Amino acid sequence: IAEGDDALLRAEMEELYPADISGILYELGTEQARYLLSLLNRKVGAEILANLDPGDRKDFLEDFSSQELAPYVDEMDSDDAVDILNEQPIQIREEVIGLLEDREQARFILDLLHYDEDVAGGLMQKELIKINVELTVNQCIEEIRQQAENVEKVHVVYVVDDAGKLLGYVSLKRIVLSRKHAKIADIYDENIIFVETYRPVTEVAEIMQRYDLEAVPVVNVQGRLLGRITIDDIVDVITEKAEEDIQAISGISGEVVEDDNIWQRAKVQLPWLVAGAVGSLMAATVINGFQDELSQIAALAAFIPIIGSTGGNVGIQTASLIVQGLSDKAGLTASLGQRLLRTILVALINGLVVGLLAGAYTFIIGEPRLFFVVSTSLLSVVMLASFMGTITPLLLNRIGINPAVASGPFITTANDLIGIGVYFMIANLLLHL
Amino acid sequence: IAEGDDALLRAEMEELYPADISGILYELGTEQARYLLSLLNRKVGAEILANLDPGDRKDFLEDFSSQELAPYVDEMDSDDAVDILNEQPIQIREEVIGLLEDREQARFILDLLHYDEDVAGGLMQKELIKINVELTVNQCIEEIRQQAENVEKVHVVYVVDDAGKLLGYVSLKRIVLSRKHAKIADIYDENIIFVETYRPVTEVAEIMQRYDLEAVPVVNVQGRLLGRITIDDIVDVITEKAEEDIQAISGISGEVVEDDNIWQRAKVQLPWLVAGAVGSLMAATVINGFQDELSQIAALAAFIPIIGSTGGNVGIQTASLIVQGLSDKAGLTASLGQRLLRTILVALINGLVVGLLAGAYTFIIGEPRLFFVVSTSLLSVVMLASFMGTITPLLLNRIGINPAVASGPFITTANDLIGIGVYFMIANLLLHL
Repeated sequence: IAEGDDALLRAEMEELYPADISGILYELGTEQARYLLSLLNRKVGAEILANLDPGDRKDFLEDFSSQELAPYVDEMDSDDAVDILNEQPIQIREEVIGLLEDREQARFILDLLHYDEDVAGGLMQKELIKINVELTVNQCIEEIRQQAENVEKVHVVYVVDDAGKLLGYVSLKRIVLSRKHAKIADIYDENIIFVETYRPVTEVAEIMQRYDLEAVPVVNVQGRLLGRITIDDIVDVITEKAEEDIQAISGISGEVVEDDNIWQRAKVQLPWLVAGAVGSLMAATVINGFQDELSQIAALAAFIPIIGSTGGNVGIQTASLIVQGLSDKAGLTASLGQRLLRTILVALINGLVVGLLAGAYTFIIGEPRLFFVVSTSLLSVVMLASFMGTITPLLLNRIGINPAVASGPFITTANDLIGIGVYFMIANLLLHL
Repeated sequence: IAEGDDALLRAEMEELYPADISGILYELGTEQARYLLSLLNRKVGAEILANLDPGDRKDFLEDFSSQELAPYVDEMDSDDAVDILNEQPIQIREEVIGLLEDREQARFILDLLHYDEDVAGGLMQKELIKINVELTVNQCIEEIRQQAENVEKVHVVYVVDDAGKLLGYVSLKRIVLSRKHAKIADIYDENIIFVETYRPVTEVAEIMQRYDLEAVPVVNVQGRLLGRITIDDIVDVITEKAEEDIQAISGISGEVVEDDNIWQRAKVQLPWLVAGAVGSLMAATVINGFQDELSQIAALAAFIPIIGSTGGNVGIQTASLIVQGLSDKAGLTASLGQRLLRTILVALINGLVVGLLAGAYTFIIGEPRLFFVVSTSLLSVVMLASFMGTITPLLLNRIGINPAVASGPFITTANDLIGIGVYFMIANLLLHL
């Protein structure tokens, strides 16, 4: 397709949604993609750029000059503009802001650049419709007409006082159904849920989910209306959080893109593999210390896998249950003490079941003298791993690390190591080797 | 609080949002919760019931009679009403539908009960505003006035023809800004994204995410407008999917609620623990078959943990990468052959690194004759586990099972087992034991 028929291409692109064109760009080389983008009108182009995956976008925009980039940034929603500029080197960032024709947009962007990515201020967009509480419905419609040009999605109109303080909202439905001369002061709803700029993004997500909101206004500490956060950005936050958790559990460091080369792919897996290997080699050192016992009773080695894997599995399970509880709406209401007590009781049941199962197996292979060694070891391992699986995510959470890491391979290997230590100690004790 | 002062309680509840009252109900006993609910007006009560967690709700509503339940169902959005009725025994379900005062609601519910939970039809609600394309803006506002009573959130007005076929939409913003006598036919937007009733819910979620939609209309195969799906339901779908994935990876069967008793808790963990234990005992059988070798070279046992855990870790990593790819917007574009080739190359790198690391360790413990055994085994194990980790989720996905299960403990244990088999076979071969 991309061999020069501008008019045809332009016509075809016009029938597609920006999100679909983004999809097409992924399949083209950088130069073809750039050519295609240049054919489209600025507004559509801006939306497409906003839609791209941040990593890919950074690569794609690398050899855009500030002059080329600025017209697109002019047309974007302020939150997307800030995301893109944050990916650029400082020099480009400042040049682009200087080149913007829409000075209001430039001011919006400078405001938003102050905020961290992970607080409400960093996620909000400045585009919204606000009206003074003193107006009538008719004047309000006039205001909407003026302000609506830059605002893509209007859910409600925010009502503010002369100082810009957020008072409440009026839904468009309400405006449509009200008499023209009604006063906004009489029809607006004071029950409005808002968030402060410094609230963590995850908290905002929770609030919007709990109250089924499609947009939430953002205010500063004085209650002045500064911007709004729309649900589509929150959906992205939720999806990202889920992906991060799964990466943490699976021991993958960093995102992987389909067309990464094999070195990049290996780099994502190796850190945790090596960490896990080092842990296992420490377990090897422990086992090696019990060489005499092993050469006396070779069957002892047969139970190394069940000790290791059960410790790992129980650790993952309990940690994931805690992580789930931490991110649950209802939250963890039980105290740490209660939680530990319950965990230990559950572990007792699980440990007895698995322990007796493995104990039965000692009879099958004709090594009944190992019954007590294997079953007590497994019981202890399950209890220890449950304890660790409960404590570790709570600790990580407190010091601000994603608690899902506690279900990852390193912790699993740690449980493995502890389990094997316990196993050989118990063997040594019970068999008087 | 709950000791009888009805008026006070009622006044206090009025200041809270329904979602917050749901939170309070969780902390009360069933009887107190019922009493509190009875104080509230039906509409708020209905919203609270819709907000509860399905499992808890089922318990809570267990001893409600059909007569008690019906008034709440009358006030609910049709999609929530169907969810609640689906949790009830068939008899109650039919009684409640018979008792509904709002006959339109009854008809809506009967319509919706046809659909499976996991397709668009099962997620949609019947409440929406639709207008005939022949109307003027003024008539349209009149229609909105009539229809809007039952529709909580109005994003857009859907435009249909005489046969009820979906033609497009008009945003409320557009209506507010249009002249009263303009014809809908002239101002509506034909570019509307819709889904068919039979589309899987996950696909709907993807579409709404890709196009940043707040609501999507649902049509039947003839294109007739039947309902709409709002973004808050999609947010729930996304959250649930993420939770399911994490449960699958962690080997937890079923959801856990904070106040489950310890038996229920244990039941969630035991199935996979036992499955894992059985796998490990099979590994034990393998090891036991090599008793002679082990008593000759006791150091062989030292490497059992690294073989097992590396196989498991690599399996989880590759499976999770594939699962991530499967749920990615961009999707898996590479062919199976390309993917396998790349996986094998990556595995080669990972296997060499881990293999050489463990190989070096054989020198440290003074068993250099194990160098080749340990390093070739690890290389083979990493390659096998990567292969399995790529194939298994793709197969599971094809037969309709959540592919995240492939990163779970059972598959990990399978890799463990295969790894140990390979290890001892190589040992046997290279050391001519």
